[in-house]
Amino acid sequence: MTEQSPEPIPHLGGSLARIESDLGNPTRLGIVASLKNRDKAEFKLLRDSLGVSDSVLSRHISALEKVGLVAVRKGYVGKRPRTWVSITPEGGTRLDAHIQALRELAGGGADQQ
Amino acid sequence: MTEQSPEPIPHLGGSLARIESDLGNPTRLGIVASLKNRDKAEFKLLRDSLGVSDSVLSRHISALEKVGLVAVRKGYVGKRPRTWVSITPEGGTRLDAHIQALRELAGGGADQQ
Repeated sequence: MTEQSPEPIPHLGGSLARIESDLGNPTRLGIVASLKNRDKAEFKLLRDSLGVSDSVLSRHISALEKVGLVAVRKGYVGKRPRTWVSITPEGGTRLDAHIQALRELAGGGADQQ
Repeated sequence: MTEQSPEPIPHLGGSLARIESDLGNPTRLGIVASLKNRDKAEFKLLRDSLGVSDSVLSRHISALEKVGLVAVRKGYVGKRPRTWVSITPEGGTRLDAHIQALRELAGGGADQQ
Protein backbone atom coordinates (compact mmCIF):
# COMPACT_ATOMS: atom_id res chain seq x y z
CA MET A 1 0.00 0.00 0.00
CA THR A 2 1.79 3.18 -1.19
CA GLU A 3 1.29 6.36 0.85
CA GLN A 4 -0.38 8.87 -1.52
CA SER A 5 -0.43 12.37 -0.08
CA PRO A 6 -3.84 12.31 1.64
CA GLU A 7 -6.26 15.04 0.66
CA PRO A 8 -6.23 17.51 3.62
CA ILE A 9 -9.33 17.71 5.84
CA PRO A 10 -10.41 21.30 6.57
CA HIS A 11 -9.53 22.42 10.08
CA LEU A 12 -12.67 22.04 12.22
CA GLY A 13 -11.23 22.65 15.68
CA GLY A 14 -12.30 26.29 15.56
CA SER A 15 -15.82 25.36 14.49
CA LEU A 16 -16.09 22.89 17.34
CA ALA A 17 -15.01 25.59 19.77
CA ARG A 18 -17.80 27.89 18.57
CA ILE A 19 -20.55 25.30 19.10
CA GLU A 20 -22.93 26.45 21.83
CA SER A 21 -23.51 23.60 24.26
CA ASP A 22 -26.70 25.35 25.39
CA LEU A 23 -28.05 24.88 21.87
CA GLY A 24 -26.83 21.30 21.49
CA ASN A 25 -30.25 19.92 22.29
CA PRO A 26 -32.24 20.01 19.03
CA THR A 27 -35.46 21.10 20.75
CA ARG A 28 -33.65 24.11 22.22
CA LEU A 29 -32.17 24.92 18.83
CA GLY A 30 -35.70 24.77 17.41
CA ILE A 31 -37.11 27.02 20.14
CA VAL A 32 -34.47 29.75 19.80
CA ALA A 33 -34.38 29.63 16.00
CA SER A 34 -38.17 29.91 15.85
CA LEU A 35 -37.92 33.12 17.88
CA LYS A 36 -35.19 34.56 15.71
CA ASN A 37 -37.16 36.68 13.27
CA ARG A 38 -40.16 37.47 15.42
CA ASP A 39 -40.93 39.85 18.23
CA LYS A 40 -42.16 37.11 20.53
CA ALA A 41 -44.03 33.84 20.44
CA GLU A 42 -46.71 32.49 22.67
CA PHE A 43 -45.88 29.41 24.72
CA LYS A 44 -48.62 27.24 23.23
CA LEU A 45 -47.61 28.21 19.68
CA LEU A 46 -44.07 27.02 20.37
CA ARG A 47 -45.40 23.88 22.04
CA ASP A 48 -47.60 23.01 19.05
CA SER A 49 -44.88 23.84 16.53
CA LEU A 50 -42.37 21.58 18.22
CA GLY A 51 -44.86 18.88 19.10
CA VAL A 52 -43.66 18.66 22.72
CA SER A 53 -45.55 18.66 26.01
CA ASP A 54 -46.07 21.71 28.24
CA SER A 55 -43.67 20.34 30.85
CA VAL A 56 -40.93 19.54 28.31
CA LEU A 57 -41.23 22.99 26.77
CA SER A 58 -41.25 24.68 30.18
CA ARG A 59 -38.09 22.85 31.18
CA HIS A 60 -36.29 23.89 27.98
CA ILE A 61 -37.44 27.49 28.20
CA SER A 62 -36.33 27.81 31.84
CA ALA A 63 -32.92 26.46 30.92
CA LEU A 64 -32.64 28.85 27.95
CA GLU A 65 -33.76 31.77 30.12
CA LYS A 66 -31.18 30.90 32.78
CA VAL A 67 -28.34 31.14 30.23
CA GLY A 68 -29.65 34.38 28.76
CA LEU A 69 -30.77 33.11 25.38
CA VAL A 70 -34.47 33.90 25.78
CA ALA A 71 -36.69 36.16 27.90
CA VAL A 72 -40.08 35.15 29.30
CA ARG A 73 -43.00 37.49 29.96
CA LYS A 74 -46.29 36.51 31.54
CA GLY A 75 -49.53 38.45 31.11
CA TYR A 76 -53.22 38.19 30.38
CA VAL A 77 -55.38 38.38 27.31
CA GLY A 78 -58.76 39.21 28.78
CA LYS A 79 -58.94 36.96 31.81
CA ARG A 80 -56.78 34.26 30.32
CA PRO A 81 -53.13 34.00 31.47
CA ARG A 82 -50.59 33.98 28.68
CA THR A 83 -46.82 33.36 28.48
CA TRP A 84 -44.68 34.90 25.76
CA VAL A 85 -41.11 33.98 24.93
CA SER A 86 -38.68 36.16 23.00
CA ILE A 87 -35.07 35.82 21.93
CA THR A 88 -32.58 38.14 23.63
CA PRO A 89 -29.99 40.13 21.65
CA GLU A 90 -27.34 37.83 23.14
CA GLY A 91 -29.47 34.86 22.06
CA GLY A 92 -29.52 36.11 18.49
CA THR A 93 -25.76 36.50 18.35
CA ARG A 94 -25.05 33.12 19.92
CA LEU A 95 -27.62 31.39 17.71
CA ASP A 96 -25.99 32.79 14.57
CA ALA A 97 -22.53 31.69 15.74
CA HIS A 98 -23.83 28.22 16.59
CA ILE A 99 -25.58 27.79 13.24
CA GLN A 100 -22.46 28.95 11.41
CA ALA A 101 -20.33 26.46 13.37
CA LEU A 102 -22.80 23.66 12.59
CA ARG A 103 -22.71 24.63 8.91
CA GLU A 104 -18.90 24.40 8.94
CA LEU A 105 -18.93 21.04 10.71
CA ALA A 106 -21.58 19.70 8.39
CA GLY A 107 -20.09 21.17 5.26
CA GLY A 108 -16.44 20.44 5.81
CA GLY A 109 -14.66 23.46 7.13
CA ALA A 110 -14.58 27.10 7.94
CA ASP A 111 -13.05 28.19 4.67
CA GLN A 112 -15.99 26.98 2.65
CA GLN A 113 -18.41 29.80 3.59
CA MET B 1 -53.70 43.70 25.31
CA THR B 2 -55.70 42.69 22.23
CA GLU B 3 -55.12 39.19 20.82
CA GLN B 4 -53.71 39.77 17.30
CA SER B 5 -53.69 36.58 15.29
CA PRO B 6 -50.13 35.36 16.06
CA GLU B 7 -47.94 34.70 13.07
CA PRO B 8 -47.79 30.86 12.78
CA ILE B 9 -44.54 29.08 13.63
CA PRO B 10 -43.56 26.46 11.06
CA HIS B 11 -44.16 22.90 12.25
CA LEU B 12 -40.85 21.53 13.54
CA GLY B 13 -42.00 18.32 15.15
CA GLY B 14 -41.11 16.31 12.06
CA SER B 15 -37.66 17.90 11.88
CA LEU B 16 -37.03 17.05 15.52
CA ALA B 17 -38.01 13.45 14.83
CA ARG B 18 -35.44 13.19 12.04
CA ILE B 19 -32.53 14.40 14.19
CA GLU B 20 -29.99 11.60 14.63
CA SER B 21 -29.08 11.35 18.29
CA ASP B 22 -25.88 9.55 17.24
CA LEU B 23 -24.82 12.74 15.48
CA GLY B 24 -25.91 15.09 18.27
CA ASN B 25 -22.36 15.40 19.54
CA PRO B 26 -20.67 18.10 17.41
CA THR B 27 -17.37 16.20 17.23
CA ARG B 28 -19.17 13.18 15.81
CA LEU B 29 -20.98 15.38 13.30
CA GLY B 30 -17.60 16.78 12.30
CA ILE B 31 -16.06 13.31 11.93
CA VAL B 32 -18.84 11.87 9.76
CA ALA B 33 -19.25 15.02 7.65
CA SER B 34 -15.50 15.15 7.01
CA LEU B 35 -15.73 11.62 5.60
CA LYS B 36 -18.70 12.41 3.42
CA ASN B 37 -17.04 13.24 0.11
CA ARG B 38 -13.90 11.17 0.43
CA ASP B 39 -13.00 7.55 0.09
CA LYS B 40 -11.46 7.34 3.54
CA ALA B 41 -9.45 9.40 5.99
CA GLU B 42 -6.52 8.49 8.13
CA PHE B 43 -7.03 8.59 11.90
CA LYS B 44 -4.34 11.20 12.53
CA LEU B 45 -5.70 13.47 9.78
CA LEU B 46 -9.12 13.45 11.45
CA ARG B 47 -7.49 13.99 14.84
CA ASP B 48 -5.52 17.02 13.63
CA SER B 49 -8.49 18.46 11.73
CA LEU B 50 -10.75 18.29 14.76
CA GLY B 51 -8.06 19.26 17.25
CA VAL B 52 -8.94 16.41 19.62
CA SER B 53 -6.75 13.83 21.38
CA ASP B 54 -6.18 10.27 20.14
CA SER B 55 -8.28 8.84 22.98
CA VAL B 56 -11.20 11.23 22.39
CA LEU B 57 -11.20 10.48 18.67
CA SER B 58 -10.95 6.73 19.27
CA ARG B 59 -13.93 6.85 21.62
CA HIS B 60 -16.05 8.75 19.08
CA ILE B 61 -15.03 6.51 16.17
CA SER B 62 -15.84 3.32 18.14
CA ALA B 63 -19.26 4.72 18.99
CA LEU B 64 -19.90 5.71 15.36
CA GLU B 65 -18.72 2.30 14.16
CA LYS B 66 -21.02 0.53 16.63
CA VAL B 67 -24.09 2.34 15.21
CA GLY B 68 -23.06 1.66 11.62
CA LEU B 69 -22.19 5.23 10.58
CA VAL B 70 -18.50 4.60 9.85
CA ALA B 71 -16.20 1.67 9.07
CA VAL B 72 -12.65 1.27 10.38
CA ARG B 73 -9.82 -0.49 8.61
CA LYS B 74 -6.34 -1.07 10.04
CA GLY B 75 -3.26 -1.72 7.92
CA TYR B 76 0.38 -0.81 7.39
CA VAL B 77 2.25 1.66 5.27
CA GLY B 78 5.69 0.14 5.15
CA LYS B 79 6.28 -0.98 8.72
CA ARG B 80 4.10 1.71 10.25
CA PRO B 81 0.58 0.77 11.42
CA ARG B 82 -2.20 2.93 10.04
CA THR B 83 -5.94 3.27 10.75
CA TRP B 84 -8.38 4.49 8.13
CA VAL B 85 -11.96 5.54 8.71
CA SER B 86 -14.65 5.73 6.06
CA ILE B 87 -18.33 6.63 6.01
CA THR B 88 -20.76 3.78 5.34
CA PRO B 89 -23.59 4.10 2.81
CA GLU B 90 -26.00 4.13 5.77
CA GLY B 91 -23.85 6.82 7.37
CA GLY B 92 -24.17 8.99 4.30
CA THR B 93 -27.94 8.71 4.22
CA ARG B 94 -28.34 9.37 7.93
CA LEU B 95 -25.91 12.29 7.82
CA ASP B 96 -27.87 13.95 5.03
CA ALA B 97 -31.16 13.49 6.90
CA HIS B 98 -29.63 14.89 10.09
CA ILE B 99 -28.17 17.94 8.34
CA GLN B 100 -31.47 18.60 6.61
CA ALA B 101 -33.32 18.37 9.93
CA LEU B 102 -30.80 20.74 11.54
CA ARG B 103 -31.27 23.15 8.64
CA GLU B 104 -35.03 23.09 9.16
CA LEU B 105 -34.70 23.62 12.91
CA ALA B 106 -32.20 26.40 12.42
CA GLY B 107 -34.04 28.01 9.55
CA GLY B 108 -37.59 27.81 10.80
CA GLY B 109 -39.36 24.93 9.25
CA ALA B 110 -39.51 22.11 6.82
CA ASP B 111 -41.33 24.06 4.13
CA GLN B 112 -38.50 26.49 3.68
CA GLN B 113 -36.20 24.20 1.67
